[in-house]
Amino acid sequence: MNWWSTDETHDAQRTSWVKSAQGHRDFPIQNLPLGVFSPQQQGPRIGTAIGDAILDLTACAAEALFSSPALSSCLQRHSLNALMALPSAQRQLLRQHISRFLSDPQYRDDLTPHLYPQAECTMHLPAQIGDFTDFYVGLHHAENIGRQFRPDNPLLPNYKHIPIGYHGRASSVRASGVNVRRPSGQRKAPDQDLPRFEPSQRLDYELEMGVWISEGNALGQPISIADAAQHFAGLCLLNDWSARDFQAWEYQPLGPFLAKNFHSSVSPWVVTAEALAPYRIAQPPRPAGDPVPLPYLMDVDDQAHGGFAIQLSVYLLTDQMRQSGDAPALLSQGPASNMYWTVHQIITHHASNGCNLMAGDLLGTGTISAPDISGFGSLMELSNGGTSPYPLPNGESRSFLQDGDEVILRAQAAAPDRATIGFGECRATILSAL
Amino acid sequence: MNWWSTDETHDAQRTSWVKSAQGHRDFPIQNLPLGVFSPQQQGPRIGTAIGDAILDLTACAAEALFSSPALSSCLQRHSLNALMALPSAQRQLLRQHISRFLSDPQYRDDLTPHLYPQAECTMHLPAQIGDFTDFYVGLHHAENIGRQFRPDNPLLPNYKHIPIGYHGRASSVRASGVNVRRPSGQRKAPDQDLPRFEPSQRLDYELEMGVWISEGNALGQPISIADAAQHFAGLCLLNDWSARDFQAWEYQPLGPFLAKNFHSSVSPWVVTAEALAPYRIAQPPRPAGDPVPLPYLMDVDDQAHGGFAIQLSVYLLTDQMRQSGDAPALLSQGPASNMYWTVHQIITHHASNGCNLMAGDLLGTGTISAPDISGFGSLMELSNGGTSPYPLPNGESRSFLQDGDEVILRAQAAAPDRATIGFGECRATILSAL
Repeated sequence: MNWWSTDETHDAQRTSWVKSAQGHRDFPIQNLPLGVFSPQQQGPRIGTAIGDAILDLTACAAEALFSSPALSSCLQRHSLNALMALPSAQRQLLRQHISRFLSDPQYRDDLTPHLYPQAECTMHLPAQIGDFTDFYVGLHHAENIGRQFRPDNPLLPNYKHIPIGYHGRASSVRASGVNVRRPSGQRKAPDQDLPRFEPSQRLDYELEMGVWISEGNALGQPISIADAAQHFAGLCLLNDWSARDFQAWEYQPLGPFLAKNFHSSVSPWVVTAEALAPYRIAQPPRPAGDPVPLPYLMDVDDQAHGGFAIQLSVYLLTDQMRQSGDAPALLSQGPASNMYWTVHQIITHHASNGCNLMAGDLLGTGTISAPDISGFGSLMELSNGGTSPYPLPNGESRSFLQDGDEVILRAQAAAPDRATIGFGECRATILSAL
Repeated sequence: MNWWSTDETHDAQRTSWVKSAQGHRDFPIQNLPLGVFSPQQQGPRIGTAIGDAILDLTACAAEALFSSPALSSCLQRHSLNALMALPSAQRQLLRQHISRFLSDPQYRDDLTPHLYPQAECTMHLPAQIGDFTDFYVGLHHAENIGRQFRPDNPLLPNYKHIPIGYHGRASSVRASGVNVRRPSGQRKAPDQDLPRFEPSQRLDYELEMGVWISEGNALGQPISIADAAQHFAGLCLLNDWSARDFQAWEYQPLGPFLAKNFHSSVSPWVVTAEALAPYRIAQPPRPAGDPVPLPYLMDVDDQAHGGFAIQLSVYLLTDQMRQSGDAPALLSQGPASNMYWTVHQIITHHASNGCNLMAGDLLGTGTISAPDISGFGSLMELSNGGTSPYPLPNGESRSFLQDGDEVILRAQAAAPDRATIGFGECRATILSAL
């Protein structure tokens, strides 16, 4: 079975006995994302989202509903790390089990006690993140940001040869819903002689996808592009909050540091590689004249199936909107196909020098922007570096984020004759500086 | 008690009933570093180095030799993380206990069964590293490297205002003795049109100290410079292996990535903040004309006691030396006072935006070079970017590391009327590329 192959768990006709799953925006039975949740007044456990509910997979495992002892053991944990570390055949088996449990009415009575309303649960990080790496594969974002610094030469010479990435901070990644304290730090405006230490005045979001790593590789042992699929557990949404003023002052010569590491938010559900199989699409051809990737990054299957038919969107809810009862305003929307490098390419590149990835590691794609303003994935781009405040439908505008602003990322995967599945939300509100 | 105060555990006259500890280069009774080791055919446990031996502190704790239940519990683990997370008063109590055990002959008979020869033990990483951050506080290193890129303007404008740092890779940090596989990666020589994927031809070491974090801070809660000492567990040696050819091609705009993350080596013993108290010295005054640090980085006590009287040295053992039975050749030697920022300043800066540090995190200082070639902390500096191969005493020379080369870092802390204590070694050998 190839990593882009589909089976009966993907059938658009399959339905669940959990009523709210039918036509659910994010969590129909074709999705079955994995996460870690706590029901009210109870400890964390592993679950899958189904419609408006969560099925407690840890409880199912404790009742020996899974035929595989390895699966059973890995489900009785407080994080997905052990499950992610299993070979992909085990993770496919898990999906088949869950899909049967939730579609076949004979399981309804036994499983109903293990269903919890999502609205009454707290979501946690799905895994203990060993290392967090952020890439920069959004071509249009790189061009947009580069243009603000180097109008004539926005992309550096290495960009189309090498997937640019850097290490981020694992300890400050939080699940959706944890609010973000506006950071203080050193900033030096171009018209100032000296830096000052004060709250960020150019706080921004970044629309990214997060790539969860499944099986790791041993230190010193690269991952070939043909094997990269075995190391890919699934996707989530990622907001790489950024203090642009700190970034401008600190980033040379070693890259972003305190501008980024005060908080990163992820959507709590891992939309698994298995669930995403029907939404795999060809990687868009490179523009004429672009270099051919080096052989270690090239694979026929990856070129044919390495992309994702995923639509990403960003919403903003300001204090004023909240008080007026307005819905969040759509800021941008665009496809994941604006990634210049595939998920398998960034996994392979990351391990190409022998760097060891581990189950539960998180890789960010970098900001995914569309070529035009309708799909710009940050305020830095929407406001052209703060020079053109971006208008909101209620008459407000934003150059950068204000206290009380809530940023909401959403995503959906869609394909012809397939159910549409979603990622849930990645949302958080800006709290004023200490 | 201040963090630079000494007590009877530091007395130069104190001796141990472990004979090899007397006058030991690294581990007299005044040191008592903490680490994690495995005796032959046995599992990992916590120990302290004393002379040529290791005292098994996990076994001591199991026999209830420590009065504090918290200490006892934290010592019965496979890593120092829990111990590091204890308040510093507990860690001082631990030192006092161990110092008494190993100096008072009444403990000899009971403790002798818990002593193991170091030569027969395997050392592990002392802690599970949550995040690894590398700084760039070696002023002369920054100038030397900067001069190779920008002869007229070696230091960027931010350097003397902000402690420059970036995130490294935690998963590939290894204890001394684990050999280093020469990495392959993208490199583009200035005279090449296109990058190639091949083994690094400019593999280098970097002489650094590693700072172990003790108590963590909550996300969003900075650490004031006056409180930084509470978060400092101790020091080790760190070799930040670097592929200079990969670095030159990949590092813009987001900093070093695959050039560094294939392997980092640390000496396995944590020389504790408590042990280092007698070797605290004033931070050298900044050169005339340098900016005064911003208030969040300034503290009278830190200026008066924030430095370390530590001498660092690098040795190289080549294959040819090994075959001739030669001793390793000294490459460089210099004092830790060549750090432009103190350990407390980098801790405070790291958390100044609310970034949460955790017990067991590792911060590298960055390469510590002296102003002249006798103390340059990397081959990139010793060979002037590879243009002047550095001569070795046996007639060989090195621009960069060759397969079979073993790099050995050592350090000693010394002060008048005090015993000299050492860090042990951080050593590893280069293996040929796959």
